[in-house]
Amino acid sequence: MAAAARLAARGRPLSRPNPAVGCLVVRDGIVVGRGWTRAGGRPHAEAVALAEAGEAARGASVYVTLEPCAHRAGRGPACSDLLVEARPARVVVGQRDPDERTRGRGIERLGAAGIAVALHDCPASRASLAGYLVQAERGRPHVTLKLATSLDGAIATAGGESRWITGPAARAHVHSRRAMADAILVGGGTWRADAPRLDVRLPGLEARSPRRLVLSRSIAAPGVETLPAPAAIAGLEAVQYLYVEGGAGAAAAFLAADLVDRIELYRAPIVIGGGAGAIGDIGLSSLAAAHGRWRLAERRQLGSDTFEAYRRQGQGQPQDGD
Amino acid sequence: MAAAARLAARGRPLSRPNPAVGCLVVRDGIVVGRGWTRAGGRPHAEAVALAEAGEAARGASVYVTLEPCAHRAGRGPACSDLLVEARPARVVVGQRDPDERTRGRGIERLGAAGIAVALHDCPASRASLAGYLVQAERGRPHVTLKLATSLDGAIATAGGESRWITGPAARAHVHSRRAMADAILVGGGTWRADAPRLDVRLPGLEARSPRRLVLSRSIAAPGVETLPAPAAIAGLEAVQYLYVEGGAGAAAAFLAADLVDRIELYRAPIVIGGGAGAIGDIGLSSLAAAHGRWRLAERRQLGSDTFEAYRRQGQGQPQDGD
Ligand SMILES: NC(=O)c1ccc[n+]([C@@H]2O[C@H](COP(=O)([O-])OP(=O)(O)OC[C@H]3O[C@@H](n4cnc5c(N)ncnc54)[C@H](OP(=O)(O)O)[C@@H]3O)[C@@H](O)[C@H]2O)c1
Ligand SMILES: NC(=O)c1ccc[n+]([C@@H]2O[C@H](COP(=O)([O-])OP(=O)(O)OC[C@H]3O[C@@H](n4cnc5c(N)ncnc54)[C@H](OP(=O)(O)O)[C@@H]3O)[C@@H](O)[C@H]2O)c1
Repeated sequence: MAAAARLAARGRPLSRPNPAVGCLVVRDGIVVGRGWTRAGGRPHAEAVALAEAGEAARGASVYVTLEPCAHRAGRGPACSDLLVEARPARVVVGQRDPDERTRGRGIERLGAAGIAVALHDCPASRASLAGYLVQAERGRPHVTLKLATSLDGAIATAGGESRWITGPAARAHVHSRRAMADAILVGGGTWRADAPRLDVRLPGLEARSPRRLVLSRSIAAPGVETLPAPAAIAGLEAVQYLYVEGGAGAAAAFLAADLVDRIELYRAPIVIGGGAGAIGDIGLSSLAAAHGRWRLAERRQLGSDTFEAYRRQGQGQPQDGD
Repeated sequence: MAAAARLAARGRPLSRPNPAVGCLVVRDGIVVGRGWTRAGGRPHAEAVALAEAGEAARGASVYVTLEPCAHRAGRGPACSDLLVEARPARVVVGQRDPDERTRGRGIERLGAAGIAVALHDCPASRASLAGYLVQAERGRPHVTLKLATSLDGAIATAGGESRWITGPAARAHVHSRRAMADAILVGGGTWRADAPRLDVRLPGLEARSPRRLVLSRSIAAPGVETLPAPAAIAGLEAVQYLYVEGGAGAAAAFLAADLVDRIELYRAPIVIGGGAGAIGDIGLSSLAAAHGRWRLAERRQLGSDTFEAYRRQGQGQPQDGD
């Protein structure tokens, strides 16, 4: 199932508005079909994997990160029908589909056709579907807040200089993260100070540059959409993954509204001293209230910089995401 | 030699005013003598190790982190004389002794007596002698700056609350670091705000609580010595290791004077937002000037907090220390 979740990652973010799903067909211990959701959301992962497997799907095991869909759309048959036709011996499902049109019905249809179905709450599947699940359960995109700081937590010198705090490896990593997002956002202050390009400058991935948003009560500029408040992310069409790149005011606005699912922190081994803090006032009432909200999910060295990802914990926050 | 350096650590900090040296006597692959500098500086590591080895020292290999002393003090014979008498086949030395009374003379004396001597620039030995070497070469103690911050680099909330940012494991670690120091220092602001006890609250180590210093132009209080400026650390008697515990003003004063050899950073997985920055203005001219000065030397998880040590790099800074 972890392998299917890795396949699913290939679908992100171009599968939008559909979830990026991964599917593996395994026959006698050999992978005979692999699929992930294609650009624009079709074909679905199951359709691709079953087509590759052909006759070998009969009696095989199918691993799919999300419950196969039960609704017959104009754009193609329902995956649960395709599976019934292909007659695998069993189907292992990584997450139930919260979409009203499926929600358990895909699994039922398989069971009714005599196919063994196992539903797991698989963490890798959940993480690979974070944008879709947050959208379904909370009516807003999955939000990653990115920060690039010195050891003392500054995102710029007192004079506003912020290029560059981190090195080339960290900056390339940021570009790869942008390529995985549906939209990028900065605050109005950063927009005015840095006029950032917010594009993907990685060979071969230039076309992956996502939609650009600015959080502002005043800015109206060509080539960028203005978001009047963090809560307005609920209205963004076809955005599963939002990547917030600061600065301190925008970071604080999203954190204060509890709209951050993941913090991605790049730290350079430098001391700035008296610089601009990474995050503005979030209305914290006491130190005790700050504890228990974040948990280290990943750490990696990027040249001399350290990359760390922290996940939002507790309060029924269902998604780990990445 | 690394084992000898670990032995040396047992001497720290009670060996003051002498360096904490470690010594191993190895005969036919078996350790027959172990020694480290005892409290008050005597007996020396070599004397202890040779006494334990007895007759077995003859023809053995001796590993010692610092060049054996050549000066005959009233308090005991010179270690180089003791070694000549014990007649090991060879002596491996981890660092040359910068003390004028020895500086190469200990090695010469062994060589003249027909004992093979190898001098290594051994990093583990150098690290274990950092306080002594910085004192000899720069005329001041080795300085460690400790910070306990949130993910966004705050050492306190905007309201000044700083207890507690880190958890019990990190705080116990701080106490063990205090026990390794000859003196602890805080800034006048922290002294007034927190009235910190600055003692060692670890079972069995309470007596290890070091001298307490406050950096201040105004404070005069019982039980604490006042340091009028960072540069005044040069005048501290018998202090090889100084542990600076903040706050932001004291940290900045030491950094601006380039008097910090090591930064020890405890980071809790919490966001404070708009809090008090870890380090005040250090007079940085540009971001470029901040790079290349610090290098990650150690990282460790302490409960949910992360401990990191950074070493000062370049500019002829000879010591890694710890
Ligand atoms: N190292 C890094 O990772 C990094 C990343 C980004 C930025 N930076 C640095 O950070 C600095 C800019 O930070 P900053 O804090 O001044 O600016 P900022 O966070 O980029 O923008 C603040 C602005 O965002 C808008 N805003 C904030 N909260 C809002 C809310 N609740 N509703 C609607 N709009 C809201 C307002 O825009 P309007 O005033 O337009 O209404 C506000 O002025 C620059 O020096 C930049 O170089 C560093
Ligand atoms: N999380 C942590 O690791 C940690 C550690 C320590 C403190 N804190 C927090 O930090 C806050 C205090 O920080 P702070 O920056 O206000 O105070 P601070 O750094 O403790 O002390 C500043 C004071 O140090 C003296 N000073 C600074 N530079 C000097 C120089 N060059 N020469 C002589 N004296 C000098 C002055 O004392 P006088 O005014 O007396 O002359 C100055 O007011 C408190 O909230 C405390 O809880 C947190």
